[in-house]
Amino acid sequence: MKRIMLKVAYDGTGYHGYQIQDGCATIEGELNKAICKLTKVDNVELIGGSRTDAGVHAMANICVFDTDSSIPGDRFMFALNQLLPDDIVVVSSCETEPDFHPRHCDSVKTYEYKIYSSDLPNPLLDRYSAHTYYKLDLERMQKAASYIVGEHDFSAFCAAGAQVDSKVRTVYECKVENAGKEDAGNTKQNTPDTFYHGEYDITVSGNGFLYNMVRIIAGTLIEAGRGHIEPEAVKDIIESKDRANAGPTAPACGLVLKEYAFCKCG
Amino acid sequence: MKRIMLKVAYDGTGYHGYQIQDGCATIEGELNKAICKLTKVDNVELIGGSRTDAGVHAMANICVFDTDSSIPGDRFMFALNQLLPDDIVVVSSCETEPDFHPRHCDSVKTYEYKIYSSDLPNPLLDRYSAHTYYKLDLERMQKAASYIVGEHDFSAFCAAGAQVDSKVRTVYECKVENAGKEDAGNTKQNTPDTFYHGEYDITVSGNGFLYNMVRIIAGTLIEAGRGHIEPEAVKDIIESKDRANAGPTAPACGLVLKEYAFCKCG
Repeated sequence: MKRIMLKVAYDGTGYHGYQIQDGCATIEGELNKAICKLTKVDNVELIGGSRTDAGVHAMANICVFDTDSSIPGDRFMFALNQLLPDDIVVVSSCETEPDFHPRHCDSVKTYEYKIYSSDLPNPLLDRYSAHTYYKLDLERMQKAASYIVGEHDFSAFCAAGAQVDSKVRTVYECKVENAGKEDAGNTKQNTPDTFYHGEYDITVSGNGFLYNMVRIIAGTLIEAGRGHIEPEAVKDIIESKDRANAGPTAPACGLVLKEYAFCKCG
Repeated sequence: MKRIMLKVAYDGTGYHGYQIQDGCATIEGELNKAICKLTKVDNVELIGGSRTDAGVHAMANICVFDTDSSIPGDRFMFALNQLLPDDIVVVSSCETEPDFHPRHCDSVKTYEYKIYSSDLPNPLLDRYSAHTYYKLDLERMQKAASYIVGEHDFSAFCAAGAQVDSKVRTVYECKVENAGKEDAGNTKQNTPDTFYHGEYDITVSGNGFLYNMVRIIAGTLIEAGRGHIEPEAVKDIIESKDRANAGPTAPACGLVLKEYAFCKCG
């Protein structure tokens, strides 16, 4: 018996999230089917790293499973990619320690949240970024983001009903960058005078995230960017530990789990 | 009666191309339905600018139609966007000359073709760019692209069976750029040593394009980039006027009609 670790990339649009559910297409469900078929077993227990929500994407989610298969660890990626749907790709595989558990091991996860601000939705951006009609002020968002960094009780940035012992997490980085792309489809010709277009990438990395935390951070930074709250208010929102004070949960489509790195375990 | 011009953006993935077909979802079919509903008519004749193929995207396709509606030209975009599916967006609308015909008027169209070269497909890139397993040499592709520029008989770059009087077209620009994005999901950790990843954008603008011309140009530049043909061979391929000598037709998903500008008409 050996333990295999997979790093998995997926377009989450067509799935009801990572976690397996009866009667729904899920990432874990598809991985489970492919692993069972490859290793000729009836069922396999997958231990997932991040249970991403419906519609959330990943470049680097992690899962592990145990197998008696003689397939070498580094070959699982090639074999599984033959069996998985096109929108799920195993980007690496290896044999790992028999007791390695991705959620019990210190890790740094990095998420990216993409926003575009425009007076028109753009069908070529909508799948991987969240559209807002509000004009956003980059500096205000950057200032607001600076208060997110550090060790805090992030209760205000956690969906109601989440059951965890502690809501203290450490955010190592929270930055907002202008993605700076021009919208070539909207040249001056025939374009209303009110036209505006901006793209912004929020990068958040930390040692752990509460349920919906990155999407609530994104929703709150949009509130700061559009001038609905002051950037400095983010400090008070954190201190209030009250979900009602933070911004709305931004849509799932804008979120990608980009990196998932493990610190030394055990 | 007035003539309205629309500039339309769409994600072509779910459509059987621009041109209306019975029993298939098409861009023109969706526009037709929305215009009929809005202007309360049973049918409308749309004159399209570019009949993009199944799976091809656009930021700026053009169509015109005649209407007795009292809706001002610049308001059609807002009204139609309420009725269209999310993956089709009218990005501008205006009243135009009653005899304006997008295909009978001198125009400059600009297409972008996106390629990524990687030992693994990436589910977050596959929708809008074409994957190749071959490593590509940017300089070779740039050199090959330079021969495309100019007025040529592009018979070698035209799908068989296309019926047009002349296959002479002028390409004003054909450039290949490194899109330079790193694949954050594939960090050193657990990644096979053979890993490589590159993204390339081909931009082609011209006064007109033959059927599949940009996709055959892209397929030919990939052949040059991977070393299968010499960049200088593109000159001979053009001169041969023989489709069999050019590269394969690259997949539809990588292609976007980015700009569509009209020169002075009439």
